[in-house]
This record gives sequence, structure tokens and C-alpha cells, in this order.
Amino acid sequence: MKKHNFSAGPSILPQEVLQKASEAILNFNDENLSLIEISHRSPAFVAVMEKASNLVLELLNLENKGYSALFLQGGASLEFLMTPYNLMKEGGKAAYLDTGAWSSKAIKEAKLFGDVEIVASSKDKNYNYIPKGFEIPVDADYFHCTSNNTIYGTQMKSFPKSDSLLVCDMSSDIFSRSLDFSQFDLIYAGAQKNMGPAGATLVVVKDDVLGKTGRKIPSMLDYQIHISKDSMFNTPPVFAVYVSMLTLQWLKNLGGVAGIEKINNAKAALLYDEIDSNPLFKGVAEKEDRSNMNATFVLTDETLKDKFDALCKAAGLSGINGHRSVGGYRASMYNALPLESVQALVNVMKELNK
Amino acid sequence: MKKHNFSAGPSILPQEVLQKASEAILNFNDENLSLIEISHRSPAFVAVMEKASNLVLELLNLENKGYSALFLQGGASLEFLMTPYNLMKEGGKAAYLDTGAWSSKAIKEAKLFGDVEIVASSKDKNYNYIPKGFEIPVDADYFHCTSNNTIYGTQMKSFPKSDSLLVCDMSSDIFSRSLDFSQFDLIYAGAQKNMGPAGATLVVVKDDVLGKTGRKIPSMLDYQIHISKDSMFNTPPVFAVYVSMLTLQWLKNLGGVAGIEKINNAKAALLYDEIDSNPLFKGVAEKEDRSNMNATFVLTDETLKDKFDALCKAAGLSGINGHRSVGGYRASMYNALPLESVQALVNVMKELNK
Ligand SMILES: Cc1ncc(COP(=O)(O)O)c(C=O)c1O
Ligand SMILES: Cc1ncc(COP(=O)(O)O)c(C=O)c1O
Ligand SMILES: [Mg+2]
Ligand SMILES: [Mg+2]
Ligand SMILES: [Mg+2]
Ligand SMILES: [Mg+2]
Repeated sequence: MKKHNFSAGPSILPQEVLQKASEAILNFNDENLSLIEISHRSPAFVAVMEKASNLVLELLNLENKGYSALFLQGGASLEFLMTPYNLMKEGGKAAYLDTGAWSSKAIKEAKLFGDVEIVASSKDKNYNYIPKGFEIPVDADYFHCTSNNTIYGTQMKSFPKSDSLLVCDMSSDIFSRSLDFSQFDLIYAGAQKNMGPAGATLVVVKDDVLGKTGRKIPSMLDYQIHISKDSMFNTPPVFAVYVSMLTLQWLKNLGGVAGIEKINNAKAALLYDEIDSNPLFKGVAEKEDRSNMNATFVLTDETLKDKFDALCKAAGLSGINGHRSVGGYRASMYNALPLESVQALVNVMKELNK
Repeated sequence: MKKHNFSAGPSILPQEVLQKASEAILNFNDENLSLIEISHRSPAFVAVMEKASNLVLELLNLENKGYSALFLQGGASLEFLMTPYNLMKEGGKAAYLDTGAWSSKAIKEAKLFGDVEIVASSKDKNYNYIPKGFEIPVDADYFHCTSNNTIYGTQMKSFPKSDSLLVCDMSSDIFSRSLDFSQFDLIYAGAQKNMGPAGATLVVVKDDVLGKTGRKIPSMLDYQIHISKDSMFNTPPVFAVYVSMLTLQWLKNLGGVAGIEKINNAKAALLYDEIDSNPLFKGVAEKEDRSNMNATFVLTDETLKDKFDALCKAAGLSGINGHRSVGGYRASMYNALPLESVQALVNVMKELNK
């Protein structure tokens, strides 16, 4: 029996995507060759890359708005330094919102490049909320935030307006909800939550914000070079791009971001309602900042842990342990997780309270 | 019918590896989850990474000699800049041997970091030979060379001794022949020739050469950080690492590097003998520098091109067009290419000469 996969990332992908990916490893495109043993310059793979990039812009409603979509390597972690390399002026300054471990890592890398101002932080409460009402310094080259905090289960519901460029790490909630994506100048995300397998990094960048820092940027870290080569400056992560393309196509067929948003809202409502109504459970994040992707919760009575864990295991629930820095439980409900899996978890929670 | 795959990279992988990879996409390790939807911190994947790294050191005969094997992202192209970041002292100097387009790209990135001396170049003859008799300046922090020049079909048969660190881009011939790998301080290679699919980069580095430059290195570009986290500083390219592990295991079962070297020598001898003896073909690279991985050759009579191409197609030969900067033909004979495929090509060459 296939498990209910609540893994925080790498994480669940649509079954039809896995099926197609598995087939392509043996015979891609009916060419009698494997997807992973053909040239990335072959027409068949160039078409995959093109389709993947186009789907990204289409799903984010950013077509013909001056944006490029890139598939790179290195994970979101490499973007932590590519962001300042490409956007922080020599002797410049950047503003960061600190909403957790990932923001902090982004901040650490940016500090190697220049002045970094942390406009607000929720570290005082182990990042269980999103700071509000902060100000972005007028001389900041850009403002960086993390839309969804995978570890703590918080999610930004709105984004500040300012004169700075707006940069967002959307690793764990991209393609999960409708937003005006044109408010962002740079979006990046590791593929391994809502988009595909680990090994590809999505970058969506507004072309005209680039090339203005005065820095000499190594080729592999320069967005303009990757744009000019359609993500093929060097050998791309072929398999991860292909599976991302399949997943984006699956999402489009499902009604795109607006379509999945409804399902994601239903899943989150189902689980948070149970967390709130069941006296044995308590949510970790502040209600108004709760993430629709990662729900964090704890038992109100720790002595029930073994019993709950056993029930979860018996029900085939996988990957719901909380991150070590938070404890308790974390149910990640990415796009590909069906409502039935959330229902299975809720059933176990109800069972525990019988 | 499966084709004879002479692709220069990404390139042929063993059929049994493709079979296992395809299965793991649906059900990995009999865990009823896909390889690409489980946490990279799960015991099952941690074991894969460990096994892959150990196999690398074992196959290169570098166990217990102070080396670490890393699986990173970004391709060999990212190593072009990670090399100077990690090994060139602030205000330091590096020496490079220019044997082709890949060397030149490595040189370009290194120049962003300090003084680069090109000790010799074969550009004068479109890189159809390996320069010899050059001197490495005594004050160079390291000497960088490219062991196999994928585009031109040349291969270094020996490596210079000097007081500098020895760095080698082995992207297109790693694991193909016996060498004293302990003469190198840093070896790197994109996976997509002899090791696995695109999307993983192998780095083998002598631990005690690191941490001596005085540079502040961004975390993702710092070998010491990746070593301290066993290649899991961030989410690794799970699929590419897994398939690399399978391919390395396949190689070990075949007798390791010494075992495959015999087969590679036989394949190369078969093809080069035909190139030399057949009046319709001529080799591109100087004989003494010929690559056992990529054989470059041209027709002596260009009017036969259409006929030869048609024969190749009919025989199911794929990927033998030469690189645009060289022209003619290039037959890449990586580890997984069977002798029968080379025989099929040779048969077609003989057929043309009938
Ligand atoms: C919000 C966020 N940012 C960044 C990262 C780091 O991504 P990667 O491992 O791809 O570097 C993660 C990983 O989980 C994440 O959740
Ligand atoms: C010798 C050599 N070095 C470097 C590269 C670049 O590798 P990547 O595309 O993984 O960056 C290649 C690619 O073919 C190569 O053959
Ligand atoms: Mg703006
Ligand atoms: Mg409750
Ligand atoms: Mg030495
Ligand atoms: Mg001849």
C-alpha cells in the first residue's frame, strides 16, 4: 500500500508524474534511449526545458511581463548568495526579514557582500509568527523575505510595498496559492516541494533589475548569463527539469494555481479545524500566520506520544515528525498530497480522542 | 531496438542501472515510496550517499589517504570558480594548462580571483594535441589541467610534478583508466559521462589543502562546509546521486577501474585501427594524445558524408556528430558503451569503403 506522504521535502509528487518519469528512464519520447542518456542539446530535451520555463510563467501569470524563468542547480541555498551577487550594489545594502532558519541562512550569506539590515525578526518566539509593521530602509537595494517557513509552519499572507526590489524565497509554497506575482522582482525555490525532485532550482526574475550592481559576477552565478542561454549555459539537471515539467503540466490540467489553491485551502481547513477542536492537540504557529503547506502542532498531553505514533504508523502516515528545533508534529500538505491523506491523519487524531 | 549511443554527454549508462533507477522512481527500497519523494535525511537515502562516497574513494584507490568525496550540484562549471575560491590565496596566483574550450572557461573564472598564468596552450592547432615541456611557476598556488578534452578528443597521458597543488577537471574520463590518483589534490567531474545522470558533480579533495586562502567563502562554495556535512549541507540531488551510486557499484562488480580500462583500451584500439587503416577516414587528434573516451575523426572525402550518415542511421548509431568547433565525427566511448557498439560503427566504416 502506498503511504500517506507528509514529508517536508523532498516530498510527495503526483502518482501519474512518477509513472511517466519512471518510463522515461527506460525510453524517453519513444526514441529508444533513456531520458538520462541523451544530449541536453537534443531537440527533445530542449523542448522540455522550453515547456517547463513557459509553464512557470504561465502558472504565475507572468507571461509577457518582462520576467524570465530559469532552472538552475544548487538548491535555494545557492540562491542565498546569488541574490546579493546579482542585486546588491558594490558598497550597497539589503534589508531582510528574519522569519526562521532559512531566512537566517540567507542573511548570513548576504553579509559577505555588504551591509545587511534585519528589519524584524520573530526569533523571540522561536519563529512561531510573522513580524508585521516593520519598515524597509529607503536605501536598501532589495528587501528579502521567506514566504513560507517550512520548519515553523508560518506563512506570509501579504508582502510589503516599498521602493526596494522585492525578493522572495518561495521554496515551500510556490504554485500553492494565487498571489500577484508581478509584485516580486526575484522569486526562487528549490524544486523539491511543490515542483519536482531535488536537484533543480527555479528562479523567476524580472529582467530589467539585473546588471546594475557593478560587481564582476562569476558566470555560473550570473542570472543574465543563464537567461541568455535559456538555462543551458552548462549541462542542466535533465531529470529534475523533466519531472518538474511534468508536475507543472499536471498542475495546469488541475486548473493551475487557482485550482490547487481551493484544494489546499480545504486540506488546511480540515487539519487546523481538528487541531483546534480536538483537546489533545494544539497548534504551534499563531493562527493568523498559519501555513497552508506545513501545519505544526503538538500533543497537549505528552504521555500520549507513543500511542499516537503507533496509530499514525498503523494508518500508513509517513513523515509527520516535527523538525528537531520545534518538536511535536509537522504535516506537510504540498500540492500533490490528496485530501484523503489529510482525512486519514484527522481520523487518527479523532481516534486518539475517543 | 536500443540504439548504439555515442553521445558525448549526458551519455550512455548501463542498462541494469537504468532498470533499477526506473524501479526506484515508483518504489524505492521496498518502502512503498518513490526515491524522489522521501526525505534526504531518511536512513535509506543517507545510506545511498555514504555508499556512493565510499565507492568513489575505493574505486580511485584513495581510501584512508586523507581525501573526501563530495556529491555537489552545479556541474563542472561551478567547480571552475569553486577551485580558485578554495585554493587561490588572496593576492595569489594559479597556473593553467589550456587544452580547449573547457580549460578556457576554467581560466576565465579563475581570473576573477587573482593572477592566472597560462603555462601552455594548444590553441594554435585548434587543440588537437596536449602541450608538453611547459614549466609551472614556483609561486603558483595550484596548477589546473583538464585530463580529457571532450570536444577535441585529446587526453593527457601523464601529469606534471611540481610544488603546486595539482587540480584536474576529469569530467570526461574519470573512472575510465588506472592512474595514481593520489598525485592530485583536487579532482572534479560532472557526473554525466562515466558516472551517472546530469545533476551531480563529483569533487574529490585532499582535506589538508583546504582552509588556507584567507578568503571568506560563501557556504555553498566552501568545500570544508560540504565535507563537514557529508554532502548534505543542503538538499542534495537525490536522484543523480542514487544513479551514480548504482553506476559505481556496476563498475566495481566489473573489476573497477582496472577492469574497465582493459575494455576501454580494446574499444579505442578497435576504432582507431579502423580510422588509421581505412583510407576514407582520418583522425583529428595527434596520435600520442588520442583520447580513449572521445575519438574525433573526419572523412577524407567530404562528398561521402550523406552516404556515411545514412549508413550510420540505418545501423542505429546515435550521437556521433562532431562538435561544431571541430566538425566531422566524434564517437564517445564511455565506460557503459559496449564493445559491440564500437564494432557496429567500425562495420559501417568498412561498409563505406567497400
Ligand atoms: C524555505 C526554504 N528555503 C530554503 C531551503 C533550502 O533549500 P535547498 O536545500 O534546496 O538549498 C529550504 C529547504 O527546505 C526551505 O524550506
Ligand atoms: C572536460 C569538461 N569539463 C567541464 C564540462 C562542463 O560540465 P558541466 O556542464 O557539468 O558544467 C564538460 C562538459 O561536457 C567537460 O567535458
Ligand atoms: Mg516593487
Ligand atoms: Mg486543540
Ligand atoms: Mg602534489
Ligand atoms: Mg585513415
